[in-house]
Amino acid sequence: MKISNAEIKRIRSLAQKKFRDVSGAFIVEGEKMVSEALASGFEVEEVYRKDEIGEEAMSRISLLSSPSPVLAIVRKPSDTDSGLSGLGLSSGLYLALDSIRDPGNLGTILRAADWFGVDAVFASADTVDVFNPKVVQSTMGAIFRVRFRYASIPEVCTSFLESGGRVYGTFLNGSDIYSADIATGRDFPVLMVTGNEADGISPEVSSLCSDRLFIPPYPVGEPGSESLNAATATAIALSEFRRRAR
Amino acid sequence: MKISNAEIKRIRSLAQKKFRDVSGAFIVEGEKMVSEALASGFEVEEVYRKDEIGEEAMSRISLLSSPSPVLAIVRKPSDTDSGLSGLGLSSGLYLALDSIRDPGNLGTILRAADWFGVDAVFASADTVDVFNPKVVQSTMGAIFRVRFRYASIPEVCTSFLESGGRVYGTFLNGSDIYSADIATGRDFPVLMVTGNEADGISPEVSSLCSDRLFIPPYPVGEPGSESLNAATATAIALSEFRRRAR
Repeated sequence: MKISNAEIKRIRSLAQKKFRDVSGAFIVEGEKMVSEALASGFEVEEVYRKDEIGEEAMSRISLLSSPSPVLAIVRKPSDTDSGLSGLGLSSGLYLALDSIRDPGNLGTILRAADWFGVDAVFASADTVDVFNPKVVQSTMGAIFRVRFRYASIPEVCTSFLESGGRVYGTFLNGSDIYSADIATGRDFPVLMVTGNEADGISPEVSSLCSDRLFIPPYPVGEPGSESLNAATATAIALSEFRRRAR
Repeated sequence: MKISNAEIKRIRSLAQKKFRDVSGAFIVEGEKMVSEALASGFEVEEVYRKDEIGEEAMSRISLLSSPSPVLAIVRKPSDTDSGLSGLGLSSGLYLALDSIRDPGNLGTILRAADWFGVDAVFASADTVDVFNPKVVQSTMGAIFRVRFRYASIPEVCTSFLESGGRVYGTFLNGSDIYSADIATGRDFPVLMVTGNEADGISPEVSSLCSDRLFIPPYPVGEPGSESLNAATATAIALSEFRRRAR
């Protein structure tokens, strides 16, 4: 298989959001990731193997410092921007990301959401692009399994509250997560909100949280750190929600 | 303040481990990080402020894509390589890192270890350098508070077992962490081992774990993801250890 310079240029352009938006496609690298893409409901446009296109061409299209043996161009799903439509919020555990900026954090959060069976993840428009190659790679395949929607987080919170659900957020003055009342997501929908890495949950979204939680440091009342990493705090909270739901 | 080209070159060299090892110093950037360094027991060699050295010089010494307003050269502590000496393992919760390779993961783990009051963190020699600038920055200051030692992890495990302590690791065939027997660290020392991002805990260290734990996916028995991120799993386990110890 020969690969033209125009094709190489097009693939490389997908490292940038504006070109991903225009072409509706994103890059996936590595044997495991590409086989997960092929096994998923995502449409795989093209698969490039080092064996076929040669090492030099692969090093030109790969975004990794050590080029992977295989790279795929995958179509973005059509529902990423469709907000709450079609989800039917009668029950379940959902996650809302209020301005997560770090690609590694978003990828790690999706991986945890997948592990803990979160029903869908909503993200504010100013959250990093989920098809950013660093996000995609750090999901370790969760991007092909977790339902992900960009949406207005205040609107999502309002919909949950109007559906008789609850909206949880973590705050420094929240209740101890280990002993606070936590809903299972069986009788009504439950939304957990994760805030921005530096600024936490925005004031508008904070005012829509029905329940305020806090992951206590140890010894209690003596935090050494200022805070936990946003992805870490999200994963601990998901773990605690699922522990209580059993 | 003028800054010479030789000085700039020396500072930039600290991005590389071999030069950090030779000079015994590392780089810290940002107002918050530098003020934490100054308030800590670490020896701060020099502080460079953009106001004093100028924007151009700052952009040359800074390792960040947007140069920070302040950068410090900090001396590495002398006990980083002293293994278990002086720790007196009579009680407490400790963490052992068996080959953590990603700088962001190590930084995130130290931040969680700080939050959850871990008594010391041990890391295998093949773990990423804790003075790597990406590790330092992602600790958000925890590097100045958490006791950190490079050590042979099998030797650390053996010392814990010989001290009447227990060694916990997470494994796919481990006991459900939410219901398994977990020691508090009050009566004897407790070590929790985190394995490599791709390969988990090495066979040698696995054989030295007295207790095997597992963070169950949800629904139980149906993991979508293959696994959790190593830093995420560590933080969830620390949270669960501390929840049980209260």
